[in-house]
Amino acid sequence: MENKLMLMIPGPTPVPEQVLLALAKHPMGHRSGEFSKIMAEVTENLKWLHQTQSDVLTLTVSGTGAMEAAIINFVNTGDRVLVGCNGKFGDRWAKLAQAFGLDVVKVSAEWGQPLDPEAFRAHLEADTDKKIKAVIITHSETSTGVLNDLETINRYVKAHGEALIIVDAVTSLGAVNVPVDDWGLDVVASGSQKGYMIPPGLGFISVSAKAWQAYENAKIPRFYLDLGPYKKNAAKNTTPFTPPVNLIIALQTALNMMKAEGLEGIFSRHQRLMTATREAAKALGLGLFAPEGYGSPAITAVAPTGLDAEQIRSVMKKRYDIALAGGQDHLKGQIFRIGHLGFVCDRDILAAIASLEASLRELGYEGFTPGAGVAAAARVFAQ
Amino acid sequence: MENKLMLMIPGPTPVPEQVLLALAKHPMGHRSGEFSKIMAEVTENLKWLHQTQSDVLTLTVSGTGAMEAAIINFVNTGDRVLVGCNGKFGDRWAKLAQAFGLDVVKVSAEWGQPLDPEAFRAHLEADTDKKIKAVIITHSETSTGVLNDLETINRYVKAHGEALIIVDAVTSLGAVNVPVDDWGLDVVASGSQKGYMIPPGLGFISVSAKAWQAYENAKIPRFYLDLGPYKKNAAKNTTPFTPPVNLIIALQTALNMMKAEGLEGIFSRHQRLMTATREAAKALGLGLFAPEGYGSPAITAVAPTGLDAEQIRSVMKKRYDIALAGGQDHLKGQIFRIGHLGFVCDRDILAAIASLEASLRELGYEGFTPGAGVAAAARVFAQ
Repeated sequence: MENKLMLMIPGPTPVPEQVLLALAKHPMGHRSGEFSKIMAEVTENLKWLHQTQSDVLTLTVSGTGAMEAAIINFVNTGDRVLVGCNGKFGDRWAKLAQAFGLDVVKVSAEWGQPLDPEAFRAHLEADTDKKIKAVIITHSETSTGVLNDLETINRYVKAHGEALIIVDAVTSLGAVNVPVDDWGLDVVASGSQKGYMIPPGLGFISVSAKAWQAYENAKIPRFYLDLGPYKKNAAKNTTPFTPPVNLIIALQTALNMMKAEGLEGIFSRHQRLMTATREAAKALGLGLFAPEGYGSPAITAVAPTGLDAEQIRSVMKKRYDIALAGGQDHLKGQIFRIGHLGFVCDRDILAAIASLEASLRELGYEGFTPGAGVAAAARVFAQ
Repeated sequence: MENKLMLMIPGPTPVPEQVLLALAKHPMGHRSGEFSKIMAEVTENLKWLHQTQSDVLTLTVSGTGAMEAAIINFVNTGDRVLVGCNGKFGDRWAKLAQAFGLDVVKVSAEWGQPLDPEAFRAHLEADTDKKIKAVIITHSETSTGVLNDLETINRYVKAHGEALIIVDAVTSLGAVNVPVDDWGLDVVASGSQKGYMIPPGLGFISVSAKAWQAYENAKIPRFYLDLGPYKKNAAKNTTPFTPPVNLIIALQTALNMMKAEGLEGIFSRHQRLMTATREAAKALGLGLFAPEGYGSPAITAVAPTGLDAEQIRSVMKKRYDIALAGGQDHLKGQIFRIGHLGFVCDRDILAAIASLEASLRELGYEGFTPGAGVAAAARVFAQ
């Protein structure tokens, strides 16, 4: 059957119909008064979503482009940075920082385990001559479904006093509480195809007053990703370069939907979707890759001991037209990942778990009571 | 009346209905086999459009991001580059090159005049120790409506033997002949919201074998805009970072429309639209900013002596819902620009010229025989 695909990967995520229709509107001029009004509204609502009074800038980039801008605008070649590495994205930021000549100190944990805040504390407390200029953290590590303890790590960064905290919130913003001003997060990067409920193509970066001070002395060559002109133009409700107007108009619609649901509603829904998915996996006798208390509300990584994760994904796709994500790099075949980020409701989880049960049966796996997964999810939803 | 806007700016350009509908399709996973098939087809058709057997890479960026990648991947800090400056975009590339520490030699002409190929010849012939590593040319200078003589300048670059030719073809590709392989153009950058007939959000870069050799020794720090990983992934019909899948699917549709029209058809249509627009402006007694023989097939800049160009734009917008572009920087108020790039037909030009006549009358300008502009355009279309 055509056009029945159900996307349960961590991005692109499902897009609501009214957002798709907004996307399909004929473009308007990006220097028109009409478009400026939309930019003004979008920027206000981005600040609401980030819980900040400071700047939130919009760039035409993938998430990686947003993270590059989030780093290179605020440090200098040779600067020491701590990079949290417990998955594919943490590792990517270490590589990115190295490409720009930063002195990268990796603070690592095994893939599937959370970063240890105490390890950051040790590095930061030992740094009495304040050589560490930034701490770079992946909040929700998409590759493993682990939510790192940003709040605690950030507290140690604040105690250090000098270092900026730079956050990859690509799959946490719009899924879990990221109170930018309350926590004093200096730079927070995210991407449109995640909690924002729109297709890929836009990156967002919030910047604190302290980060803007660091910007004044940051000399790494840059032009397209230089955030200064974005700030200057945002003050006039415009952008330095032609923005993807259709995506901005889609974003306007999506942000209004998010405001109607409210931050509390959004966060508790994602928490519920994650809990139901995790409980269902346990009831089916499948392993969870992220330990209890560190599951990402955006994505659940399931480790089906004794079964090939790729086979499960394949049956889910062929028989039930549900796209799940596989394991990346050395995790391929060991885990599959169920995305529950953005425009996802309780029914979607029930459909996914029911299809997972059916797929497991088809593969001859009998390690669970039929219906146990759906029942476990339903128990969470009934609470 | 709502939703009657007619876009006649040089980008975003009008988007065909079937492309808008393709854009509104539900996203698919960018790592799926289905999406890889689309990427393969799109890349093949981009090569057709560029008239090249070499690579054409697709990035999530505005045109400026594409030009940055087109430059920083192939030169080193301190390298001497010649930059053609006869408008806002040429000036922008000089600034960009300076931001990355290149030794920029500007080869300038007044805004509205074409670059002088002999000036390039002089610089290139005098460079006997081959210090010039690249020549950077804006083919169609969008800010002034001037088409620079790329073919001749490129011939002098080829005679030099060492320097790469790097081309901003943002408003020339898909409007006028840019035979990448025939001319041996090393790096050609363009953007989606122009001749491609889709909204902004994608940049394209073709890269010659000679440019890939220069890439091997190019050391300017880069990550998101590093073209190596794009090439490597394109060979597997994928991208290093999440692409804007909806725009790619829209591009698939648009490129198929372009193939159906054929390169000759596309180029002769743009030539005809330009000629009709220029003839009409002359018949209305309005000045043309670009001299005869150097008009861009993408955009015509009109200099209405004795009239405020901004007033004309304002009446055209308010009374006839036609968006024209204004003059940029010091040209504001002195010129207005009629975009005729991409999804534009003869009827659109007649509508624009007829509305321009009516607007001029409304402003009390009587320097033309009523109907003379439309008649002049119609004469071109009748040929």
